[in-house]
Amino acid sequence: MNDPSGFHARLAAAHERSGSMLCVGLDPDPARFPTVLDGAPDAIARFCIAIVDATADLVCAFKPQFAHFAAHRAEDQLERVCHHIRARHPDVVLVLDGKRGDIGSTAAFYAREAFGRYGVDAVTVNPYLGTDAAVPFLELGGVIALCRTSNPGAGELQDLTVADGRPLYLHVAEMVAERWTRHGDCGLVVGATSPTELAGVRSVAPDLPILLPGVGAQGGDLEASVRAGVDGDGRNLLVSSSRQILYASSGDDFADAARAVALATRDAANAALG
Amino acid sequence: MNDPSGFHARLAAAHERSGSMLCVGLDPDPARFPTVLDGAPDAIARFCIAIVDATADLVCAFKPQFAHFAAHRAEDQLERVCHHIRARHPDVVLVLDGKRGDIGSTAAFYAREAFGRYGVDAVTVNPYLGTDAAVPFLELGGVIALCRTSNPGAGELQDLTVADGRPLYLHVAEMVAERWTRHGDCGLVVGATSPTELAGVRSVAPDLPILLPGVGAQGGDLEASVRAGVDGDGRNLLVSSSRQILYASSGDDFADAARAVALATRDAANAALG
Repeated sequence: MNDPSGFHARLAAAHERSGSMLCVGLDPDPARFPTVLDGAPDAIARFCIAIVDATADLVCAFKPQFAHFAAHRAEDQLERVCHHIRARHPDVVLVLDGKRGDIGSTAAFYAREAFGRYGVDAVTVNPYLGTDAAVPFLELGGVIALCRTSNPGAGELQDLTVADGRPLYLHVAEMVAERWTRHGDCGLVVGATSPTELAGVRSVAPDLPILLPGVGAQGGDLEASVRAGVDGDGRNLLVSSSRQILYASSGDDFADAARAVALATRDAANAALG
Repeated sequence: MNDPSGFHARLAAAHERSGSMLCVGLDPDPARFPTVLDGAPDAIARFCIAIVDATADLVCAFKPQFAHFAAHRAEDQLERVCHHIRARHPDVVLVLDGKRGDIGSTAAFYAREAFGRYGVDAVTVNPYLGTDAAVPFLELGGVIALCRTSNPGAGELQDLTVADGRPLYLHVAEMVAERWTRHGDCGLVVGATSPTELAGVRSVAPDLPILLPGVGAQGGDLEASVRAGVDGDGRNLLVSSSRQILYASSGDDFADAARAVALATRDAANAALG
């Protein structure tokens, strides 16, 4: 928490400055772009930058999703979006959603990609390989570990009862809170599909930022999730919404429409805290 | 198994044709390249293609590792290497080692990247998100799920005892063998660090290909691992070696040196079966 350029300090400052827990996920899908971008070779970057500029004062973080760029051979456009956010909105936290995870020597290459090439504050990481696979990331920046995801089959492994009677995802939360944090600034991904599970994770990891996807297009209950997910000071929650904001309108007014939904989501999240 | 263009059929044919279980991992690290490649803008592709052409008759598969390209902004060179393997060595199985894993709609973009853009036969996937996150991959190609990895901290989660008294990694093996295989051609990643664990996975998944990294640079016991890992017909094992082959020589004879180590590794693996 002492390094002002670290993930935790930058997130606290971004929350403070913006008064917002909203994180806009950048999941560009050219099939859903407005016609004004038809045929543009850099349509992905232009779409994302328009969304970013229309919502930057309403958010604490942006979260580009790697696969949406990689499927379209658009890593150069991902770089451009990341550099734009850093240059024009330097106080907003930048998270690369890549769900990386590999053994030590390879993890170091993924860390170089995330923190060097794309210049992000934190990257999402899969916990299955354990603490030593997270260390190369934590040496260069923040790590947000998958804990309880929001897909229909998430519980298939994550809810398995381990020997001490608790589900696996709480073991993951504890591993991250107790061991990963010794190496750097961590957070947890917990889907907005179950406020009860979210409250359980918060009790195991009282101080860690929680990234809450599944709001909006995935249909979570925003109010209950916010109440269950914030820390004791009503902070350290990133309410993440992507498609509901990005594709609020399929017309040329897409950026204005995105801003309107972002504003409503920010206000709804804040209202949940009364 | 009926689709001759599917992962399982192509692997069986590659085993048959080559008489080899060797899979050469392509983990390019420019810091270790020979001086003959100094300053070449496409050094990564040239290095990999030289290794591929020097070893293709000795292997059943090549396995490019994504992070080693991404950290150097070299996705275009990864495409070139993949296309070269498909064009010049069409019978060799091509595996993208990306350890992907995300929820359904995003997994579909990762699947498009792997099977469309890079044209591979199979991709490595992290199992933590469950069956539904694997389905978008299996609709387009083969999936090799992480089961028991070879890093020092692998057991931190993977060895946790779940309610039925078995370790988590055996649950993963069973989930893949029973559920994921309903959707397409699957395999499992099991590190070469423990023949006992490998034998346990083989008993739960008697018919699935097992990808065995950790041979060579990571120091596994090749002979015991091969005996424990093959199926009842002495097949369906991919013995994967990367750095020990790629960096057998730091001189301009690197491709010849790689071939010599690949030959020795292939023969040692075959000798283990007597």
